Amino acid sequence: MNVYEDLEKIRKTRPLIHHITNFVVMNDSANITLSLGASPIMAHAKEELEDLISIADAVYINIGTLDSSWIESMLIAAELSGKYNKPLLLDPVGSGASKLRTNVSLKILGYGSVKILKGNSGEILSLYGQKGAIKGVDSLSEGNMNIVEELAEKYNLTVISTGKYDYVSDGKRNAVIKNGTEMFGKITGSGCMLGSVISSFMAVNRDYFVSSVEGLLTFEIAGELAEKFSSGPGSFRENLIDSIGSIEEKHYAMSRVEFL
Amino acid sequence: MNVYEDLEKIRKTRPLIHHITNFVVMNDSANITLSLGASPIMAHAKEELEDLISIADAVYINIGTLDSSWIESMLIAAELSGKYNKPLLLDPVGSGASKLRTNVSLKILGYGSVKILKGNSGEILSLYGQKGAIKGVDSLSEGNMNIVEELAEKYNLTVISTGKYDYVSDGKRNAVIKNGTEMFGKITGSGCMLGSVISSFMAVNRDYFVSSVEGLLTFEIAGELAEKFSSGPGSFRENLIDSIGSIEEKHYAMSRVEFL
Amino acid sequence: MNVYEDLEKIRKTRPLIHHITNFVVMNDSANITLSLGASPIMAHAKEELEDLISIADAVYINIGTLDSSWIESMLIAAELSGKYNKPLLLDPVGSGASKLRTNVSLKILGYGSVKILKGNSGEILSLYGQKGAIKGVDSLSEGNMNIVEELAEKYNLTVISTGKYDYVSDGKRNAVIKNGTEMFGKITGSGCMLGSVISSFMAVNRDYFVSSVEGLLTFEIAGELAEKFSSGPGSFRENLIDSIGSIEEKHYAMSRVEFL
Repeated sequence: MNVYEDLEKIRKTRPLIHHITNFVVMNDSANITLSLGASPIMAHAKEELEDLISIADAVYINIGTLDSSWIESMLIAAELSGKYNKPLLLDPVGSGASKLRTNVSLKILGYGSVKILKGNSGEILSLYGQKGAIKGVDSLSEGNMNIVEELAEKYNLTVISTGKYDYVSDGKRNAVIKNGTEMFGKITGSGCMLGSVISSFMAVNRDYFVSSVEGLLTFEIAGELAEKFSSGPGSFRENLIDSIGSIEEKHYAMSRVEFL
Repeated sequence: MNVYEDLEKIRKTRPLIHHITNFVVMNDSANITLSLGASPIMAHAKEELEDLISIADAVYINIGTLDSSWIESMLIAAELSGKYNKPLLLDPVGSGASKLRTNVSLKILGYGSVKILKGNSGEILSLYGQKGAIKGVDSLSEGNMNIVEELAEKYNLTVISTGKYDYVSDGKRNAVIKNGTEMFGKITGSGCMLGSVISSFMAVNRDYFVSSVEGLLTFEIAGELAEKFSSGPGSFRENLIDSIGSIEEKHYAMSRVEFL
Repeated sequence: MNVYEDLEKIRKTRPLIHHITNFVVMNDSANITLSLGASPIMAHAKEELEDLISIADAVYINIGTLDSSWIESMLIAAELSGKYNKPLLLDPVGSGASKLRTNVSLKILGYGSVKILKGNSGEILSLYGQKGAIKGVDSLSEGNMNIVEELAEKYNLTVISTGKYDYVSDGKRNAVIKNGTEMFGKITGSGCMLGSVISSFMAVNRDYFVSSVEGLLTFEIAGELAEKFSSGPGSFRENLIDSIGSIEEKHYAMSRVEFL
């Protein structure tokens, strides 16, 4: 794994990342994608998805502000990602909080085109389906790796469960990432921006376990750098977008990742 | 009234504030809610409103970019707020500027679940319904308190009319707040962010006259603090989000409120 | 042409700019319009467009995140702009990238109410319709002025093709603007914000060739000023919004425009 090499590849080739994402974060997601070096497209009209996904390098679906019309677009995008062999990342925002979100996430997974599933531990659990077995999301941290691994095997993809520590598995290889900052919890859309960053790595490296770890490290190290200059969440958000654009090879020495 | 005690309650209990708000401000509203210490949810799909409102601590409807599909969601949310006894704040953005907005605002008020109605003086006037009696919005400042008080009585809720001075009444108690800064007029969505802040206080203090005054003071003092470090509207917006997260008890000495 | 005089007119009269624009940039567009001195409205509900456009001073349609429902609103807005004699600026974002976008842009142009058409060279080319004749967007820079001029004649409006240099023509008068900064390419929505700025000039000066040049100069000089204080795209965006609010007459000495 050479993260910086893949970051350079993003900066040189400027892959197109097709986003179907939520209203809250569209601007931040577009800006972090641009600052990273990739090219964001945000489009959801059913009539143009085929034109656009056929020329994209990766597809990112985030269900944060879904409704019946957008759900239709998401399902079409999931199908087209398969048809055109474009890697798809699914962010099942709020899965578990409403039945609608859980069901839509499962439907999208059903197309078989999702290569990376990324959520917080509550969202990941809701898709694992054993609600009864586990009391509360916070108690999960210890058992998390097993669930992530099982889910990855079940759906044959890479699963990322984010939190204080991030757990990544493709069913064979496992990693825990311990980078990050509490500031991520104080702004909206940090998970959504992370999705844009991982999608960009996924566009240049189709070993999705590797691109997942690379995206996580890059985003979280940028967050650690940004925190130093920030006096609150408002300035942190801005500095985060600045930081990710100025990451150099040396910064990856800050990586705190364990492969299990 | 102990504003700081309620602010601390927000920071400790992190109440869930369900937003149905406009596209322009969703990001800022989510970020100011997080910085204040509460938890924003932004969701409008009819199919999931019951799941989400039943677990919310307050509901905030802002009609800023309404259309027929979103109006349906707003009406369902108004009904569910009553059903689940969740306090609802209505921000009738642009009421008076189009018949559609006035009508939708009146319809939402008709559900009887709105506890706080917050608008600028033009919007409040449009719902008062005596357009003919008053010439122009700006001439209102003197007579404002009476209109606010009457409207509060009529609908049995707390009414806030914002402007250079803010008028608050629940039909029995009246207050005028003289904090704030002209910078609020130079960024988009300052009224919308104020709605998020008052909704957060409403979630922890169900004396809505009190939570209205508390939210106004907190937001406007944060604005006064932010202005000092700002070189324009771009930096003011960012500093405002930072400031509200670092308000301490001592800052409430800046309060300029009169109870009438 | 006296740009500063028109800027002063904007600041004094605060023209209402009705936006139907995309989800990604709504917040930035509203904020740059406010900072410039004009008043943004963002509204798309079919039921209220006549109420709102009849009182607007200019209309700005940007198709960035179009879908079937928003397309309907855009067409109604194009018709109403004609009916009420309000100048309309069209930003055909992504025209050429999907057939849907090209078709919608041509439909809007068909109403005859568009006074300024502004896009990047690829978008402008897609509406010129000679795709086969030119290989790749980047090779266009030399031949651009002719295409812009022809398109302006064909539709009887002012055409702006943006890029490293910006080409403006109303079919009789031509200008090239060489201001700007590479930072515009590193944030999302710089073209969309430019659309808001030009629309504001269009509202106070109905010589659309002149208002196009004025808007371009003002926005791009603000960008050059902002760049000096920025450490990345996050801070550049914020500084850009600050800068445009503090432009003085002397800054127009930075103008680099040639009339051909």
